[in-house]
Amino acid sequence: MKDINVAIVGGSGYTGGELIRLLKFHPHVNINQITSRKHAGKKVSDLHPNLQDVDLKFTDVDDIDADVIFSALPHGVSMNIIPDLLENGSKVIDLSGDFRFNDIDTYEKWYGIEHKYPDLKAVFGLPEINRELIKDANLIANPGCFPTGAILSSLPLVQDKLVDHLIIDSKTGVSGAGVTPTNVTHYPICADNVAPYAVGTHRHMPEIQEQLRSFGNYDVNVSFTPHLVPVTRGILTTNHSFLKDDSLTTDDIYELYLKKYADELFVKVLDDNNIPSLNSIRGSNYCHIGGINIDENGHLVVISAIDNLVKGASGQAIQNMNIICGFDENESLKHLGLYP
Amino acid sequence: MKDINVAIVGGSGYTGGELIRLLKFHPHVNINQITSRKHAGKKVSDLHPNLQDVDLKFTDVDDIDADVIFSALPHGVSMNIIPDLLENGSKVIDLSGDFRFNDIDTYEKWYGIEHKYPDLKAVFGLPEINRELIKDANLIANPGCFPTGAILSSLPLVQDKLVDHLIIDSKTGVSGAGVTPTNVTHYPICADNVAPYAVGTHRHMPEIQEQLRSFGNYDVNVSFTPHLVPVTRGILTTNHSFLKDDSLTTDDIYELYLKKYADELFVKVLDDNNIPSLNSIRGSNYCHIGGINIDENGHLVVISAIDNLVKGASGQAIQNMNIICGFDENESLKHLGLYP
Amino acid sequence: MKDINVAIVGGSGYTGGELIRLLKFHPHVNINQITSRKHAGKKVSDLHPNLQDVDLKFTDVDDIDADVIFSALPHGVSMNIIPDLLENGSKVIDLSGDFRFNDIDTYEKWYGIEHKYPDLKAVFGLPEINRELIKDANLIANPGCFPTGAILSSLPLVQDKLVDHLIIDSKTGVSGAGVTPTNVTHYPICADNVAPYAVGTHRHMPEIQEQLRSFGNYDVNVSFTPHLVPVTRGILTTNHSFLKDDSLTTDDIYELYLKKYADELFVKVLDDNNIPSLNSIRGSNYCHIGGINIDENGHLVVISAIDNLVKGASGQAIQNMNIICGFDENESLKHLGLYP
Amino acid sequence: MKDINVAIVGGSGYTGGELIRLLKFHPHVNINQITSRKHAGKKVSDLHPNLQDVDLKFTDVDDIDADVIFSALPHGVSMNIIPDLLENGSKVIDLSGDFRFNDIDTYEKWYGIEHKYPDLKAVFGLPEINRELIKDANLIANPGCFPTGAILSSLPLVQDKLVDHLIIDSKTGVSGAGVTPTNVTHYPICADNVAPYAVGTHRHMPEIQEQLRSFGNYDVNVSFTPHLVPVTRGILTTNHSFLKDDSLTTDDIYELYLKKYADELFVKVLDDNNIPSLNSIRGSNYCHIGGINIDENGHLVVISAIDNLVKGASGQAIQNMNIICGFDENESLKHLGLYP
Repeated sequence: MKDINVAIVGGSGYTGGELIRLLKFHPHVNINQITSRKHAGKKVSDLHPNLQDVDLKFTDVDDIDADVIFSALPHGVSMNIIPDLLENGSKVIDLSGDFRFNDIDTYEKWYGIEHKYPDLKAVFGLPEINRELIKDANLIANPGCFPTGAILSSLPLVQDKLVDHLIIDSKTGVSGAGVTPTNVTHYPICADNVAPYAVGTHRHMPEIQEQLRSFGNYDVNVSFTPHLVPVTRGILTTNHSFLKDDSLTTDDIYELYLKKYADELFVKVLDDNNIPSLNSIRGSNYCHIGGINIDENGHLVVISAIDNLVKGASGQAIQNMNIICGFDENESLKHLGLYP
Repeated sequence: MKDINVAIVGGSGYTGGELIRLLKFHPHVNINQITSRKHAGKKVSDLHPNLQDVDLKFTDVDDIDADVIFSALPHGVSMNIIPDLLENGSKVIDLSGDFRFNDIDTYEKWYGIEHKYPDLKAVFGLPEINRELIKDANLIANPGCFPTGAILSSLPLVQDKLVDHLIIDSKTGVSGAGVTPTNVTHYPICADNVAPYAVGTHRHMPEIQEQLRSFGNYDVNVSFTPHLVPVTRGILTTNHSFLKDDSLTTDDIYELYLKKYADELFVKVLDDNNIPSLNSIRGSNYCHIGGINIDENGHLVVISAIDNLVKGASGQAIQNMNIICGFDENESLKHLGLYP
Repeated sequence: MKDINVAIVGGSGYTGGELIRLLKFHPHVNINQITSRKHAGKKVSDLHPNLQDVDLKFTDVDDIDADVIFSALPHGVSMNIIPDLLENGSKVIDLSGDFRFNDIDTYEKWYGIEHKYPDLKAVFGLPEINRELIKDANLIANPGCFPTGAILSSLPLVQDKLVDHLIIDSKTGVSGAGVTPTNVTHYPICADNVAPYAVGTHRHMPEIQEQLRSFGNYDVNVSFTPHLVPVTRGILTTNHSFLKDDSLTTDDIYELYLKKYADELFVKVLDDNNIPSLNSIRGSNYCHIGGINIDENGHLVVISAIDNLVKGASGQAIQNMNIICGFDENESLKHLGLYP
Repeated sequence: MKDINVAIVGGSGYTGGELIRLLKFHPHVNINQITSRKHAGKKVSDLHPNLQDVDLKFTDVDDIDADVIFSALPHGVSMNIIPDLLENGSKVIDLSGDFRFNDIDTYEKWYGIEHKYPDLKAVFGLPEINRELIKDANLIANPGCFPTGAILSSLPLVQDKLVDHLIIDSKTGVSGAGVTPTNVTHYPICADNVAPYAVGTHRHMPEIQEQLRSFGNYDVNVSFTPHLVPVTRGILTTNHSFLKDDSLTTDDIYELYLKKYADELFVKVLDDNNIPSLNSIRGSNYCHIGGINIDENGHLVVISAIDNLVKGASGQAIQNMNIICGFDENESLKHLGLYP
């Protein structure tokens, strides 16, 4: 397999930094461009001080030419540049929300902007549901961080239409809010705190719901409540539901998960149904699942843990690239979590 | 009102320290004894380094004589000493779980021990439901930390029988685990982490359920999932449910909460239904409620925030003492939260 | 003593919030105005969510009339309004750096701005050195947060001219950076991190040095290195030096500190020379001192701990107000630290 | 180069976990044994939940046979097993303090135990001073975490005998205290706190001093003050001193560091003398150096940052293994820091 060139558009944020960190030693990849309109000319290590050994400077956004292009631009901005990149023959993996929705009305309602390219369709880049489609895709919509954790915790339930309504209670690290300081990410405010936000109004809700409805082929409902917790990386998803069939046991459900993910490289259903936590997947592309339990009132819990910047963003984007390019799916993603 | 003497039994832990911190400047209270079998003879400030100005030593547990006695002993231990204290004519406020259950079978099932005094009944010391009973009580079972946050977030719903099942997803600070170091409370493990635990098996579930069933006078079900978060103090409760009457709006529910708690000193339903967070009630006896929302799928969220060591333990115990003794209910509890 | 009216100018920041939190239950004080040009008209609790029970709105900065006025404005801004306030007969306690320097050249060099009122002199409001002068002052320059911890850890050494050079290595909580979010205070950057900054260039260095030279009446040198640590409140000062007289022992120095601070309400030299830490003084006006040690190479360490927002700012400002007004020096400042 | 077998003795702690995390994908290494007397028979992932893909169980300590053996046992225990391992022909890299001292009296004084093998000499495994000796060593004493950061921040100063006394003020993450929970590592105590400890009495002081005296060939003095900070990984070292030659400038010293470390793979003197911080080296084997400054009072600061579990322990041990075995020195150590 010969080398490919990749470019990262909008590389000054956390997902940009993670793409570089992970791709730096990819045996088949050459990073030939990292753009940042704002920081063009600066060394990459000026913004990503962990990347002292990366000898590259940010460039402006013109003349991007690469086999695979990662767009780490914000939604609304990303959609503007992607059609041209595709026309030039590049494969594009978009980390924004712009092409995640099949239903454009849903996108426009929840994102509050008009979609300029409603006819341009992407493959939703969650390998655990779309691996075959990803292989031949030119445009990947890389899933949102919350949806990655939520959907992976739900697939076996939805596949067999076992539930009507999923209540997703998610706890996210602060890096999910991005690189720009705000009141919400100010250390004295978010340290030693738990802050629910966007209660009932977060745009990852319709993303989860559309994907699960498509996957399960029925109108499963999703409710979603995110919480900001004093953690840098990670999303812990607590998935609450009631089974339609009350004869199913905790063991039955656990077996369902084991079977579903038996061949997945990055989704680990924990031995003995152990409970996942964020400290075990930090910095890695793994999703841990466990803590499955049906209580005496018939209520089911399933828990998943991911690193929002890796499996929830840049790691998954590289996983998609590996699939597209025919590389080993875990190439440059073999890092084990940093524990403690 | 003349002064009273109080004693704290089992005063070396965090709830003991909080009782002293809060009672130190109570105008009607003299702390005349703080016991600790293990640390008898040591200065109180050796274990509670914030209490440099408290000139008291721990004593052994014998000869406790006070008008009001706080027991901060563990469950199973607390029940052994309380009958004698009551017989001596003291009022007792028990911070353990030993006397919280009306149904002794439930206690014995969930705590895994035999109850030695099944006929000794206490008043469940949540002033917001039992204020009148507390006034005349000799024995108060001070509520658990999770139940305090969970019940206060549920009362208006249960009072009007609006819901059949409450899904309580709680996030607790690590001080709730007490003063003894364990693997779970080891800094490298619980920092930068979210760790669900006791999924479906936590003994605060039946406490919440028994109280809500008694208060609402119907068989409401409760499911409870606790999470350990990297916070020192605080419990953030996310209360998920579905209304039986789908004509009710978010505003209707918000009004219900406003009305229910209008006269409460310590329960604040936030203006404009703002979302509570832990950093606003740190160190105080307040419970903040807000973030009330019904989403497009008919799912209701209500959020509450308390300091687990204050409203969730020692502050509430002092509130109970104030009610019993006829002091102002907020005497020595006027502290505003430490923010940031 | 009859009640006084106080105003807080620039009350939307952390020191403003702390002034309100602490003054709210002061028996002799009525807060009659809190100004914020930016937030005029908003409720105080909109910016300080811990102050739900404070029924006040921010006003604009005009027509300030109070017996005592706290200025919590930034340096450079504060100096502009103070002369008029004094002329109206108010006592002013300025929390900025504008009037802390006797030597105006030093101020102008380190703050990089021209001083408009070089002839207006304030009393440096550290009660432990200037209590008598404070009683009669009209204008108090409230000390900086680092200088408070550094000077209190140095006084006994400088009083007896025991050292020529003090190396102050300070670790500060992030609330010291104020209420405005920046890259430096962004949670993902400052969590799980230690970040030295302003190495050799921080303007609290000349403040410490001027005060110690004035107090000791000799040219003691000060070097100062601040570090940002993932803590919300607190400054831990590690004071390194070499004694000129190498016959002095650790015990001698410890005795010197005990004697110096024997009558101080808020400076506690810890029993048995225990080592201070930030968790014991959180939210309180105390300064803990201890950990005094001379090693086998003749190097002396002294450690102090304060809450930067209380003894390092608003608590000390209230202490100064109490002294000026003849109230008990610890009125409304009796809070014990929040531990844990 | 053909594969080697390695064993890890005492693999249940954090340094054991790090050795496995880093060695897992080393192209020339096969981990054939991981011992733990206490946990023999358990899966490695039961104790290191990040290592789900490591299919190994802990064994008892008998019959260890490997080309290279890492001992991650505590000091005092490690020394007992090492002579036999050496006799069997294995190379041994000891992560304890047992063989770090050339002067046995110093060891016995500071560690408080008798050394059983005073004649068995190891090479102090800091490649930046002993690379040539390491190549041929059979026994490596892997440096302590504090000494690694302190020595690397001092070498250029000591090499040219520029200073007489180094004042090392270090801030360490809590993982340095190991895997066993104690009061000191209890989350509610060490979160939101800075805690100096072992002031003037920490046994890494003589380790630093002996190494610097040997390297510089003169009697340089070292004073050392460690602080526990609420960080999981990392040691930030602030190195204070006074230059004997006061004509030297900050630029001169910066150039000295640049030159000294120009060819080192893992020691990075930051561009433009930027200030290091812990978040840039997390999880990596890098040591960042910078923030070099001489203030107006002639006081010099140099700052270094390492990950205590990697360059301060397991990463450096693998670096030593690579040198001994003739592998690329950075094999399996190319990880960039996890930022944020």
